[in-house]
Amino acid sequence: MDAEANGNPSTGGEAPDPGRLARLLAGDGVRLVVDAGLSDTLVRELAAVTSLTPTRDPEGPGPVVHVGPTLPDVLREGGTLLWAHSTNAGVDALLRPGWPPRALLTRTVGRMGERIAQYVLAWVLADCQRVPDVLADHRARTWERRQGELLDGTHAVVFGTGAIGSAVAAALQRLGVRTTGVARTPRDTEGFDRVLALADAPAVLPEARWVVNALPLTPDTRALFAAPLLNALRGATFLNVGRGESVDLDALRAALTSGHVARAVLDVLPTEPAPPHAPAWDLPRTVVTSHSAGLTTDTDVATDFRTAWRDTTNGRLPSLTVRVGAGY
Amino acid sequence: MDAEANGNPSTGGEAPDPGRLARLLAGDGVRLVVDAGLSDTLVRELAAVTSLTPTRDPEGPGPVVHVGPTLPDVLREGGTLLWAHSTNAGVDALLRPGWPPRALLTRTVGRMGERIAQYVLAWVLADCQRVPDVLADHRARTWERRQGELLDGTHAVVFGTGAIGSAVAAALQRLGVRTTGVARTPRDTEGFDRVLALADAPAVLPEARWVVNALPLTPDTRALFAAPLLNALRGATFLNVGRGESVDLDALRAALTSGHVARAVLDVLPTEPAPPHAPAWDLPRTVVTSHSAGLTTDTDVATDFRTAWRDTTNGRLPSLTVRVGAGY
Repeated sequence: MDAEANGNPSTGGEAPDPGRLARLLAGDGVRLVVDAGLSDTLVRELAAVTSLTPTRDPEGPGPVVHVGPTLPDVLREGGTLLWAHSTNAGVDALLRPGWPPRALLTRTVGRMGERIAQYVLAWVLADCQRVPDVLADHRARTWERRQGELLDGTHAVVFGTGAIGSAVAAALQRLGVRTTGVARTPRDTEGFDRVLALADAPAVLPEARWVVNALPLTPDTRALFAAPLLNALRGATFLNVGRGESVDLDALRAALTSGHVARAVLDVLPTEPAPPHAPAWDLPRTVVTSHSAGLTTDTDVATDFRTAWRDTTNGRLPSLTVRVGAGY
Repeated sequence: MDAEANGNPSTGGEAPDPGRLARLLAGDGVRLVVDAGLSDTLVRELAAVTSLTPTRDPEGPGPVVHVGPTLPDVLREGGTLLWAHSTNAGVDALLRPGWPPRALLTRTVGRMGERIAQYVLAWVLADCQRVPDVLADHRARTWERRQGELLDGTHAVVFGTGAIGSAVAAALQRLGVRTTGVARTPRDTEGFDRVLALADAPAVLPEARWVVNALPLTPDTRALFAAPLLNALRGATFLNVGRGESVDLDALRAALTSGHVARAVLDVLPTEPAPPHAPAWDLPRTVVTSHSAGLTTDTDVATDFRTAWRDTTNGRLPSLTVRVGAGY
């Protein structure tokens, strides 16, 4: 439950050897292979960081550093892959259908905590200022004075107290919101006034003005937001920046209809991209934001790769190393 | 320019005498007259504060304390009015057509600085998260990932460094925005990294991501935001929480069309309420928010009246006393 993205550099069974990696990176013939989809600007940045000449061709001799959202199959075999850096935070696409032994896998987290926190803040304040209603008034050319709601003193319950949940809570707390975290293993965490175990969450949900899901998808969190939990709310706005499969959309529809949930902001859905006929578009008082909350930029990729390059070339395991066994 | 709402309790020529007022309020026969439009809840609050029995009838003998958005003419004559408390921040309607000598005038400011600051924050973040576009995507059932913009490190220029401008700047600064104030008399002010004179503002406008007007309407500020100033911008979003007459709407339209102004958020317009045919509704990339940013609530009125009652009954001039000569 609190197993969100973190920087613990432990790895799976066949861990890369940082000393060996540093020696190989310092040697001759290392090839920097970049994904065909990377922008020219980013590729130039990567060349500057490494002093290598980038190629988009994965075939060829010699040890390889790869940068991209996926991994070409040719690099999964033959033992040439030293290190792959994912341009995304999610690495499922690189780990399937099999990860080469001893290769290092790092990922881009960028300013994801900050980005998702700002996304949550924007949509929470949009709710306070009734932005969707105001925009509709404008389209109708209707002068309608609408009383805003002050955020100060409201109560947010944030599920997930890892890097994302903590950044979200800290941003809300800074604007005077009382913050309760929900975690598998409650402990004092930055941004939270208090952290409760899941079993203790239903007691505080009736007083929540905001409920945020920032949990990763695990067997424990699949369909966690179903009728029992949603019906404990008393008019909260529900925001999902975790994973779509954590929400039972039928139960959410019922809770929106009954008023247990006042409004929903869904960045993630069980099926993405959502097709035009997806029922989520028709949920009452809901906005779907197309998995945009934590999008990484070229700058994020370049920054995280630069930091990882500094670590690897100095014989250290980067903090953004993926624990291949855990999958994040 | 910096003559925004402030708490300086100086008054016009025929100033009320706090000692006399305290003695009269402590005496018998004081009538609490409330406007017909006040809610029952608010009237009960006022009764509790004063221990007086409220009436909605302004006619009658004895000294009067009046609470409302205007003042009945009968209370302008005969010397019975001790004190009028305005339920709004604006007091024009009470001062016209003449203010009785020695009567105290106080007003409700409430949490206006906080409210307007939160309004600005909400619309600035809505711009960063492209909320109008995202809502349009949703209406079109289109899954469209949109990169958000981080507020951190952007630059805001706020015209007006009084209570409102300072609250706006402090809210932005707390989220990592660099803040420049513009004032008639520049001085160090909370919320601002620096404060410039109007003559020095054009030099910093090209680097502004946000330009906020929080100035009162004076001869100096009428049509201040016209072509010379607006065309100095390089793609800023312009927000007006001051007065509508400070903006030349034709010049704003031209600046929006040319791209000098990226987007506009107008809480105030020269004519309010704006009729359906008002040209402001047709400005490109603009939202009109119907003078909602700083709306006062019953709680604001009750809180400010309670504080003023405590001051007057203790022989002090309340901090929310209106300087009748200045008109605010």
